[in-house]
Amino acid sequence: MKHYLSIHDIGDLQTTVNEAIALKKNPYQFEQLGHQKTICLLFFNNSLRTRLSTQKAAMNLGMEVMVMNFGSEGWQLEFSDGAVMDGGKAEHIKEAAQVVSQYCDIVAIRAFAGLLDKKKDEAEEVLNGFKKYASIPVVNMESSVAHPLQALADTITIEEHRIIERPKVVLSWAPHPKPLPHAVPNSFVNMMRLQEAEFVITHPKGYELNPEVTKGCKIVHNQRQALENANFVYVKNWSSYSEYGKVLHTDKNWMMTQEKLGDAKFMHCLPVRRNVVVEDAVLDSLQSLVIEQANNRTYAAQVVLKRILENIK
Amino acid sequence: MKHYLSIHDIGDLQTTVNEAIALKKNPYQFEQLGHQKTICLLFFNNSLRTRLSTQKAAMNLGMEVMVMNFGSEGWQLEFSDGAVMDGGKAEHIKEAAQVVSQYCDIVAIRAFAGLLDKKKDEAEEVLNGFKKYASIPVVNMESSVAHPLQALADTITIEEHRIIERPKVVLSWAPHPKPLPHAVPNSFVNMMRLQEAEFVITHPKGYELNPEVTKGCKIVHNQRQALENANFVYVKNWSSYSEYGKVLHTDKNWMMTQEKLGDAKFMHCLPVRRNVVVEDAVLDSLQSLVIEQANNRTYAAQVVLKRILENIK
Amino acid sequence: MKHYLSIHDIGDLQTTVNEAIALKKNPYQFEQLGHQKTICLLFFNNSLRTRLSTQKAAMNLGMEVMVMNFGSEGWQLEFSDGAVMDGGKAEHIKEAAQVVSQYCDIVAIRAFAGLLDKKKDEAEEVLNGFKKYASIPVVNMESSVAHPLQALADTITIEEHRIIERPKVVLSWAPHPKPLPHAVPNSFVNMMRLQEAEFVITHPKGYELNPEVTKGCKIVHNQRQALENANFVYVKNWSSYSEYGKVLHTDKNWMMTQEKLGDAKFMHCLPVRRNVVVEDAVLDSLQSLVIEQANNRTYAAQVVLKRILENIK
Repeated sequence: MKHYLSIHDIGDLQTTVNEAIALKKNPYQFEQLGHQKTICLLFFNNSLRTRLSTQKAAMNLGMEVMVMNFGSEGWQLEFSDGAVMDGGKAEHIKEAAQVVSQYCDIVAIRAFAGLLDKKKDEAEEVLNGFKKYASIPVVNMESSVAHPLQALADTITIEEHRIIERPKVVLSWAPHPKPLPHAVPNSFVNMMRLQEAEFVITHPKGYELNPEVTKGCKIVHNQRQALENANFVYVKNWSSYSEYGKVLHTDKNWMMTQEKLGDAKFMHCLPVRRNVVVEDAVLDSLQSLVIEQANNRTYAAQVVLKRILENIK
Repeated sequence: MKHYLSIHDIGDLQTTVNEAIALKKNPYQFEQLGHQKTICLLFFNNSLRTRLSTQKAAMNLGMEVMVMNFGSEGWQLEFSDGAVMDGGKAEHIKEAAQVVSQYCDIVAIRAFAGLLDKKKDEAEEVLNGFKKYASIPVVNMESSVAHPLQALADTITIEEHRIIERPKVVLSWAPHPKPLPHAVPNSFVNMMRLQEAEFVITHPKGYELNPEVTKGCKIVHNQRQALENANFVYVKNWSSYSEYGKVLHTDKNWMMTQEKLGDAKFMHCLPVRRNVVVEDAVLDSLQSLVIEQANNRTYAAQVVLKRILENIK
Repeated sequence: MKHYLSIHDIGDLQTTVNEAIALKKNPYQFEQLGHQKTICLLFFNNSLRTRLSTQKAAMNLGMEVMVMNFGSEGWQLEFSDGAVMDGGKAEHIKEAAQVVSQYCDIVAIRAFAGLLDKKKDEAEEVLNGFKKYASIPVVNMESSVAHPLQALADTITIEEHRIIERPKVVLSWAPHPKPLPHAVPNSFVNMMRLQEAEFVITHPKGYELNPEVTKGCKIVHNQRQALENANFVYVKNWSSYSEYGKVLHTDKNWMMTQEKLGDAKFMHCLPVRRNVVVEDAVLDSLQSLVIEQANNRTYAAQVVLKRILENIK
C-alpha cells in the first residue's frame, strides 16, 4: 500500500479484515517492522479515538510517533497555486508537505470539512496537498469527504459479529443539533459495496448524501420500514448535502430507540449524543457495538500502517 | 494496587515510601515491567510538574506514554445520567471512559475543582466517572478534592529530611490573589494521619478546611504560636471552604518569612508566588525543600505505577 | 559541549559540519548514546520544523522526548528578581527551571522576541533564565536574538552545495507584511564569520541589523549590485532594529525573483510567504535549497545533542 486516502486503497477487503483480526489477537507480533520508522500525526481538528488508536497502532508496530496539533501549535497554510501570501497564511502546503516528509516515514492527517463551501471541501485541499507534495505515504485520519480508518474498523466489527452470511445492514440518519460532515457515512457506504450484505440507507428527504456515493444504493425514507429485520443498524447524523452544511430539521422521531432497533446490533462511530442520536437504553444494552468499534480502530490503523511499512521497507 | 484515587489506596505507607526511595536510587531497575504497556495522561487542566514527572515515571518503567490535553485537543464531556445531549457537550463520560480503556493499560487524570459549586466538586465527576466506566486502573493526577501523588512525594521528602523520630509538622495557610482548590491541603492532612508526627494546622478564621478532613487535627489560629519549634512547615494557600471558593482576605501577615520559619524546613507543592505566599529569602535558602519535593514527584508516581503494573500483569 | 545557546558554543565549525554530514548518512549509529536520557522541548512559541526536527534528532540518538507547549499547557512565568507575584504570573523562572531539571537531562527552549521592547528582548530572559537556574544543559531552539540550530543547518547546506572554495554568499532582506525577529539573520551573520566566503548583506536603509552583529560586514544597499556573481543567496525578512520591531516599508522590488537570482542557489529558513518574499519560480526551481535546509535541521540538532550527551555521560 502506498497511501491510505480512501477505502479504495485497501486491496482485497476480506484479506485485510482477516489480517486485522489476527493483529488484534497478537498486537506485538510485528513490533520489529516499525523499528527506526517514525509517523507524524498531524491534526487540523480535534480527536480522541483517532488520535489514541492511531498512536497505539503505530507503537504496537514499534514506530516512533510525533503528534502535532497544527491549529494550536502551528499556523495557517495556503493551498492556492500562485497565491500572493500577504495575508494571514504563513506557509504554503508545498513547503509544509515537503518539510514534514524530511522528518518522518509516514504522515497521517485529519482535516475536517468546513461545511461552508462544497466545492472547497470536495477538493480535499489538505489531504490532496499532502498527497501531491509529500514524498512519503499519507494516511487519511478523516478528511472532508472520507474516513476510511473508521470504515475499516466498522467492517472488522461487522465481521466479528456477523452470524449470517449476508446480513441486512441499515445506515440510519439521526438528528443532531450541529451540522456534521459526510465523511463517515460516505466511507461506510463505499465500504458496504465491497461486502456481502443487504444494504439500506434511510434518512428524511433533504438529507440525501452525495448521489455519486450512493448511486445504486437502496434508499428508503420510511425509517421503520428500512429497519425491518435488520442485523446491524449504523446510526449517524450528517448535515444536508444539497443545501450544503445545513441542519434542515432535527426531528426527534428519527432518534434510534430500543423498540425500533429490535434484535439488531447497534453501531455508531462516536462521539455520540445520548438521547438525541440514540436513547440510553440502546447504548447501555448488549446490542451496542460502539465500544468494540472504537477498539477496532487500533487494528484498522495497525493493518494499514503494517501494509505501508512493508511497502517502504 | 487497583486504582490510585486517594492516599487510602496506598497500602502500608512506610513500605511504599521505602520503595520509592529505592526507585530513586535506581530508577531503571524495573524498565521491563512496563514493556508493551501504555499509559494515557488526560489533562482537563494545565500542568508542569505533574505532566513531566508522571511521564518520566512511566518511561522509567519502560511504558509508552500518550499525553492528551482534553480541553484543547478534545471536547466537553457530559456526566449526568439520562441527559438529553442537545447542548454544548459532545460525548458522555460513559463512552469516553470505555473508549480510552481500549487504547491503554492505565489512565491518569487531572481535573481541578471549579470552586463554584461545592457539591459538584465533591462529586468528583471526572475522576469518579472514569473509575466507574473505565475498565482499566485510574490514577489521580489532582482531582477536585485530592492530590495523592503530591502527598506521597511530600511524605517521601519528609522521610528523607527527618532527623527526629516524631517531627513537628505545621501546615500553614498563606495569602494568594486567586482562589485555589483544597486538593493539596486535603491530601497532605490525610497523609499526615498515617505518619509519626506532631501535626498542627494554622490558618485565619474562615479558612477552615472541610471539617471531615481535619476532624481531630490540632488547629491553631495564631500562626506564630503554631510555628514554634516546627521541624517542617508546609505553606499553601487555599480558598474558603465554608464560603466556598471565596478569597476572604489576603492578609500579608500570613506570608511565610525567614524570621517566622526559624530552623524549620520549608515545603510547598509549587507553583508558588514569591513574596506573596513566601518571601524570597526562604525559597532561596537551604531550608527550602521545594525542588526536592518536585523531584520526588517522579518517584511517587513511579512507585504507584509499579504497584499497578504488578497488579495487572 | 555544555549548552548550545549561540553558535559560539559550537567549537570547531568544520569538524562539527563534517560530523553532522556523517550523522546524516547513518542517523542511527549512536542510538545507544541517548539510552535512558530524556530531553524536554519547551515551546513558548509555535513551531513546525524546529519541533519535528529536534524531536527526530533526539529519537535518532535513542532519547526519550517530552514536548510541552508552555503557552497552552502551562502558565505565565515571572522573570524579575524580587518581584511581588500578585499579578498574572503563577511561577518564577527560578522554580520552573530547577523543576524541569529534575525530570530530564537536557532542556531545549523556544522563546521569540516580542519586538516591543529591545532591551527586554536582548536580555533573553527565558533562555538566560533557564541557563542561570537549570542544572542541566540548555539548547536554544530560537530565542529573541539567536537561532543557532538554523544557522548550523544552513552551514551544513552550504557545505553540501559549495562548488568553489570561497563562495559569494549574500544575505538579502525581503518584504513581509508582519514584523519578524532578528534571530535568524543574526545567527546567519555570526556563522558566516566562521566560514571561508565572500559575504555581503543587502537591505533597504532603515533595516540595518544590530551594528554589533554586523560590525565589519560588507553592507550594500543596492540589491542588484550585491547579488552580482552570488553563489548562495539567503533571503529573509526582518523588522527594523533601530525603529525597533517596526515594518518601515514593504517595497515589492525587494522580493527575490528568478531574474535577480541568476545562477545562485536560493536559501530561506522557512516558513516563507510565496510571491511576497520570493516568487514561485525560485522556490519551485532546482536552485532552491530550502527543503534541504529543513532536512539538515535534524542533523544540526543531532550533532549538538550528541556533543552534549557525550559531555554529560
